[in-house]
Amino acid sequence: MREHTCAIVLIGNEILSGKIQDSNAYFATRELRQIGVALKRIAVVPDELQPIAEEVARCAKQFDTVITSGGVGPTHDDITMEAVAIAFGRELVVHPELARVLGEHFADRRAPGMKMAEVPAGAVLNAAGDLRFPTVQLENVYILPGIPQIFEIKLKSLLGRFASDPYFIRTIYTSAGESVIAEHLNTCLAAYPDLLLGSYPKISHSEYRVKLTLESKDEAYLARAFNRLLDLLPSEVVVKVE
Amino acid sequence: MREHTCAIVLIGNEILSGKIQDSNAYFATRELRQIGVALKRIAVVPDELQPIAEEVARCAKQFDTVITSGGVGPTHDDITMEAVAIAFGRELVVHPELARVLGEHFADRRAPGMKMAEVPAGAVLNAAGDLRFPTVQLENVYILPGIPQIFEIKLKSLLGRFASDPYFIRTIYTSAGESVIAEHLNTCLAAYPDLLLGSYPKISHSEYRVKLTLESKDEAYLARAFNRLLDLLPSEVVVKVE
Repeated sequence: MREHTCAIVLIGNEILSGKIQDSNAYFATRELRQIGVALKRIAVVPDELQPIAEEVARCAKQFDTVITSGGVGPTHDDITMEAVAIAFGRELVVHPELARVLGEHFADRRAPGMKMAEVPAGAVLNAAGDLRFPTVQLENVYILPGIPQIFEIKLKSLLGRFASDPYFIRTIYTSAGESVIAEHLNTCLAAYPDLLLGSYPKISHSEYRVKLTLESKDEAYLARAFNRLLDLLPSEVVVKVE
Repeated sequence: MREHTCAIVLIGNEILSGKIQDSNAYFATRELRQIGVALKRIAVVPDELQPIAEEVARCAKQFDTVITSGGVGPTHDDITMEAVAIAFGRELVVHPELARVLGEHFADRRAPGMKMAEVPAGAVLNAAGDLRFPTVQLENVYILPGIPQIFEIKLKSLLGRFASDPYFIRTIYTSAGESVIAEHLNTCLAAYPDLLLGSYPKISHSEYRVKLTLESKDEAYLARAFNRLLDLLPSEVVVKVE
């Protein structure tokens, strides 16, 4: 099965200080899952060069793709380009095409200087749907802005290149708690070790106590594991399956 | 000024696969900020031993306090205790007090085995409000469950020990975009380098284009920086201050 691994790095003092709740990573988790990408890590780091650079360098080595969010505007706290440059040992350089787009954009207004045209040396540009500003990419790192409306458009325009074999999912809801069903889950996993099996207890939920999610990229394998687990669980504790 | 640094590690396949949106880290960001704690990092890692152990080990070295969320129940995917033990090079051992509490709790029901009484050797227990189950702590790492209702009670009962000098905050909303105000922010920061200055653009917001947050643990310093920035900004672009 084709697997594509990914990490998301959010550059965000505003998240760490509780001023806003992240929506970009949450949006990305669902979009990536839908196209079969295995998201392995989300990190929120402050607007500081070293923490961003270290996180990006580590993730870029470990995963197929890294997506960053935030820190790409014209102000003092927009340091993601510089941090990614440090992560790869590159210089910051003005990208002529970005300079041209910026020049057009600010033709009749006060120009912000060339800060927003600076990228790590070797970076390439990717078209971003209808947006005027392309998405900057260095090696396997895609550098997206933090503003949700723009992040979402830019992410969607990139998804085609990450698409992988899809995940198939089945769900079982039980009226019994985790303690009662734990050994059945273990038995099922012993027979189906590649099954992605999640066990999520809910407290004070009227309909069920545990939601079990069974996932695999192999639809037939999933079907067999699902049937096996249904056989193992006492039928009176199974409230619903999906 | 007294500073206490913190990291949050979420153990959560269900977050990485987009099944749920995190609420624990978001809850913690606001609680920690309110008591002056500097949250420096949030990481979401999968339910796998090595990624959890590596993240916890790194954070425990780098920050005053680490809070983990998730992976502490009785099922196969509950491996946080083992991962934290690996992070500190400890064995997993049955904690007699946890075994006693579990025994009481399951006195009239099917017992889950001793898995939930296992902790890294050397771990201590902290009372957790009205909850029967105490919070396990190993060195500077606090191990909390992922269920939001329990996470929140346990976190609140720990906050007293992290409390630090508070942050003071002022806010300025501008009708001008970031490009126009960037140089004034730089001038202000040159004079007040310790100011925590955030610049957050909004697109298609009717009232303002940029929200500026000014923060410091030194109230007088903040007042001077705030006045300086107000002087620097063209008065016609300042929409509102808080």
